[in-house]
Amino acid sequence: MLIGKPLATKDLPHQAVSRAVGLAVFASDALSSTAYATEEILVILAFAGSAYFGISISIAFAIAVLLFLLTISYRQTILAYPNGGGAYVVARDNLGEIPAQIAAAALLIDYVLTVSVSISSGVAQVTSAVPALRDFRVELALLVIILMTIANLRGVRESGRLFAVPTYFFIFMSFTLLIVSLIEASLGRLKPVTGVEVIHHDVVEPLTWFIVLRAFSSGCTALTGIEAISNGITAFREPRSRNAAATLMVMSAILITIFVGFTLLANAVQAMPSHHETVVSQMARAVYGQNIMYYGTLVSTVLILLLAANTGFADFPRLAALVAADGFLPRQLTIRGARLVFSVGIVTLGMLAGVLVVFLQANVTLLIPLYAVGVFLSFTLSQAGMVVRFWRAGRLKPGEKITNEVTTLEHLPHWRASMVISAVGATATFIVMTIFAVTKFTSGAWLVVLLIPTMVFVFSRIHRHYTDIAHRLSAAGLRLKRGERHVVSALVLVDDIHIGALRMIDYAKSLGVKWRAIHVAINPAKVERIRQKWQERVGEGELTILESPYRQLIEPIRDEVLRELEANPEGYVNVILGHLAMDTLWEQILHQNNAYIFSLALQNLDRVVVTTVPYQCHHDDGNGNGHDKKNGTPLPPEVEVQAEDTAA
Amino acid sequence: MLIGKPLATKDLPHQAVSRAVGLAVFASDALSSTAYATEEILVILAFAGSAYFGISISIAFAIAVLLFLLTISYRQTILAYPNGGGAYVVARDNLGEIPAQIAAAALLIDYVLTVSVSISSGVAQVTSAVPALRDFRVELALLVIILMTIANLRGVRESGRLFAVPTYFFIFMSFTLLIVSLIEASLGRLKPVTGVEVIHHDVVEPLTWFIVLRAFSSGCTALTGIEAISNGITAFREPRSRNAAATLMVMSAILITIFVGFTLLANAVQAMPSHHETVVSQMARAVYGQNIMYYGTLVSTVLILLLAANTGFADFPRLAALVAADGFLPRQLTIRGARLVFSVGIVTLGMLAGVLVVFLQANVTLLIPLYAVGVFLSFTLSQAGMVVRFWRAGRLKPGEKITNEVTTLEHLPHWRASMVISAVGATATFIVMTIFAVTKFTSGAWLVVLLIPTMVFVFSRIHRHYTDIAHRLSAAGLRLKRGERHVVSALVLVDDIHIGALRMIDYAKSLGVKWRAIHVAINPAKVERIRQKWQERVGEGELTILESPYRQLIEPIRDEVLRELEANPEGYVNVILGHLAMDTLWEQILHQNNAYIFSLALQNLDRVVVTTVPYQCHHDDGNGNGHDKKNGTPLPPEVEVQAEDTAA
Repeated sequence: MLIGKPLATKDLPHQAVSRAVGLAVFASDALSSTAYATEEILVILAFAGSAYFGISISIAFAIAVLLFLLTISYRQTILAYPNGGGAYVVARDNLGEIPAQIAAAALLIDYVLTVSVSISSGVAQVTSAVPALRDFRVELALLVIILMTIANLRGVRESGRLFAVPTYFFIFMSFTLLIVSLIEASLGRLKPVTGVEVIHHDVVEPLTWFIVLRAFSSGCTALTGIEAISNGITAFREPRSRNAAATLMVMSAILITIFVGFTLLANAVQAMPSHHETVVSQMARAVYGQNIMYYGTLVSTVLILLLAANTGFADFPRLAALVAADGFLPRQLTIRGARLVFSVGIVTLGMLAGVLVVFLQANVTLLIPLYAVGVFLSFTLSQAGMVVRFWRAGRLKPGEKITNEVTTLEHLPHWRASMVISAVGATATFIVMTIFAVTKFTSGAWLVVLLIPTMVFVFSRIHRHYTDIAHRLSAAGLRLKRGERHVVSALVLVDDIHIGALRMIDYAKSLGVKWRAIHVAINPAKVERIRQKWQERVGEGELTILESPYRQLIEPIRDEVLRELEANPEGYVNVILGHLAMDTLWEQILHQNNAYIFSLALQNLDRVVVTTVPYQCHHDDGNGNGHDKKNGTPLPPEVEVQAEDTAA
Repeated sequence: MLIGKPLATKDLPHQAVSRAVGLAVFASDALSSTAYATEEILVILAFAGSAYFGISISIAFAIAVLLFLLTISYRQTILAYPNGGGAYVVARDNLGEIPAQIAAAALLIDYVLTVSVSISSGVAQVTSAVPALRDFRVELALLVIILMTIANLRGVRESGRLFAVPTYFFIFMSFTLLIVSLIEASLGRLKPVTGVEVIHHDVVEPLTWFIVLRAFSSGCTALTGIEAISNGITAFREPRSRNAAATLMVMSAILITIFVGFTLLANAVQAMPSHHETVVSQMARAVYGQNIMYYGTLVSTVLILLLAANTGFADFPRLAALVAADGFLPRQLTIRGARLVFSVGIVTLGMLAGVLVVFLQANVTLLIPLYAVGVFLSFTLSQAGMVVRFWRAGRLKPGEKITNEVTTLEHLPHWRASMVISAVGATATFIVMTIFAVTKFTSGAWLVVLLIPTMVFVFSRIHRHYTDIAHRLSAAGLRLKRGERHVVSALVLVDDIHIGALRMIDYAKSLGVKWRAIHVAINPAKVERIRQKWQERVGEGELTILESPYRQLIEPIRDEVLRELEANPEGYVNVILGHLAMDTLWEQILHQNNAYIFSLALQNLDRVVVTTVPYQCHHDDGNGNGHDKKNGTPLPPEVEVQAEDTAA
């Protein structure tokens, strides 16, 4: 009910979107990072003292240059991979399996962090406006993750219309804030923000290059999400690549305007990093005061952050399914559930993001060091892949084409220039990644640095397992002999000779194979009564009593099965178990449900086949008829009731 | 390894103990309650102010009178039930099923509280001596519960020798403390204890009868455990009843001496209830100072408290097994594990006690209101049962005897006197129970007052379920027709035509019944390949393709099974599933393990029998042989490897 009614496979959406809608759908991840990027720069500069906050402006411009490089480089990727050019696909296509696995690991970590960081930042915006909620930050963040997981299990249709609202609302509110502050500043009315509880660093360190680089790498989180369009090219109207590329340029321009603008404004109003109020809230409060425009700005920020988190819920399961289809992650990740979504991936993401939020207390500053290493690693691999691609394209003769399942490679006249652009991008992002990993190593990046190779190792082990099993199971060239039969001998496991047991014996007889019953003498006093009942009620076949001085059930049965296997070296041993099926779980757990335990205990024996014969113990249907007669049992229905005859 | 090697049924111990050892084994529960009873009286009196602490002496003497009444009443029970006269047995024998169930519920609650209270008090003694551990009270208590659960799963042999040490050590240390303090007092050297952080009640209430009665009921926890001997009569040497009765008298005398002595001493040294130091610790510190005698006293107290908690681990599972054998609790509780102990009961007790300790923060004062209602209810029922018994004995003619499975009822010359003794005991304990329930209602007794009827209701529902199922399953008067067979038709569920599937088909053919294969077309692209492989590799039989537009697996299979049931109205439908058995759990979870899910989905269909055919995917044995050939498969071993042929 929570998840909704199932959808048919043919309902998979294939709607193409315009540039304007495409911008709304794919820009949220990138734009939302402006909500915390400036603040995280200030958090680091605060180690050296607030006197150095002005450096954040230079850092913002450096990041703008980096974004420019990345944008023209990614534009090339979009044009080359009209069917979608995510880092995993590009790395797999050009660099091979290991780099592709590295990109996959980096991106999967990243998507988890997109969810955790965006939701944590969103909650921080909310608690800036409503301080009473501050103590429930973690609970709020978890609640949002749970709701988002459920919504995505239902399947959030990436309906452009709906998504356009928060993105354009955020763009509008951000530009309004910047323009109003510009007017106020020109009128000399822009005042520093007051009443902020600044975070307090015990010792003020000298300003070093290390701190500046650390602040720079914190600011680079503003660039997370710019790859979104390259993953989603297929969603655009034709000409897809052109439209996607144009959208990328527009998105980058908006992103850099807001980011640089916010950084300038933060400096103008002397915003301070604080545990109680976000920098966005401080800026809006300084410009507007605490009125409707202030709340509007915060609401727009929260909405775009939620939208960004939601893109994680689209991207993680999709990439996990891609990697799983290649055999590097468990197959279950490739299954589209009844609602057409990759349910396992969604639940996995929700749980991982939830764990992160709990452990790092929904604190953006604690989460940031885990972020961006993965992003920049995937940027580097993607662009390095493009370098190789352009090199290969340069080797081709004019008119020559190589087509594989993801793309077509053809001769490019300007392949050298393109290769240089990608190489510059790859180098720049590689340098940023290194700066990030080094300067943030002790504050958390070490975890990601360890995690990525570990994940790649696990991927390779999973792949080896699947390849191995596929080889083992391959039946190529095999053919069953027509009409050939092997001996089947059945062992019917009886506890007491009640109706359920008679049903099992009736089934064994109906099979027409050699059979005998076995009973484990846990309670030696019961054995004679069972023999007697066997004579009275079955009167044919053999009943073997297995001794069990240690009151064990499984071991004597296993031993007997092994003996039967030896006696029947070419055939099958069919162990027949009874199961009393109850109406409710509560009734079911009052019974021992040994069938499950025995199945598990016997499943590692070759040629041992386990059959469960249910006996239905349901409530009367109200017509005075026993439940068990409804489906027409093969047993006579006249059952005399004797209380002595307990079972189960 | 943790639990130890299995033991044979005949190893059930039948060692009889002397009075001295019997005292050690059965007195720990009762004697240990002196470690907190006095303190709990003071905690309540503190509401009216420490000026009224002197009232505790009158309360202690009132409790001594109550103990005297209970002792002579229980002596009669011991003599009447030489095979063990616990409240459940006595109530069942004389009052009927419902009172017996009430007694069982009360006692089960009680045993859980014995464990929680004793361990919490033990931890409080430890933290009195080692204040650094105070913050880890809950963790310490949980650790003890876990260790005790494991020890009891291994089976703590109730070896009298070992148990004698802590009991006699505690008796010795307690008497020494009392004697030394008496000497010190007579020399005028007994000084009030100093440096105690007293618990602080915000408002001092006037001293009311309500407070006095509440303090009295707290003190009555000193009497918990005196019923232990009546449960354990069979452990004594012959003449069992006489020996047990004599031991009871000695135990009561020791108990009352220590309890009254401790209360007098607490007043003499002006001990105060405190969150930081137990009254026992304060008394020992006042008398000895902080030397070896002080630590010895605390160690002896901790040891007897642990021993008392351990009796809960013996009593709860034993009573639960008794009640389960009568069909009022799940049957699983009657199973003696490989180590001859009632494992399910032990684990249940450990978990319940752990939950209590966590929720009530290992705080004795918070736990006490839940305690003792159950104890005194069971005292009342037990003695009321004895009243009925003596009444019945009075109806008998001299020499007449009625023997049932638990006891022999015969004419008693002094039946009237005995009946009066039991009636007085029953009335007294009933009054105390009422006082307890009323005065402690708001501080926790309400939970027990609600819990007992709830448990009795659940017991009766469980009993009805088992009786009902026994009736339904009774096969009395039934007889299978010799040689009769019903039609079995098999449906082989195949995902791909790999070796595992060939194995399933080979098994189906070997059965010799009508069979066909079914494949659910989750992936429509795969269907044609499967049909082709079927022709190549099987070449006989029928392959039915089931459509599944919603990618569901279970529903199409269930529908097909229902159709087959209709086509075969008198016989069985055998659904044959494959299972890839891996070496490790990690490998297993990389596969979908659908067999479990399908078994669950089909188990509520009558006449539908589910068979699991395993295919062993184990690692090579090192001789270059495939795993699957080790046990000799019915399939040809020449398998060509084709990577395309993936499965699972």
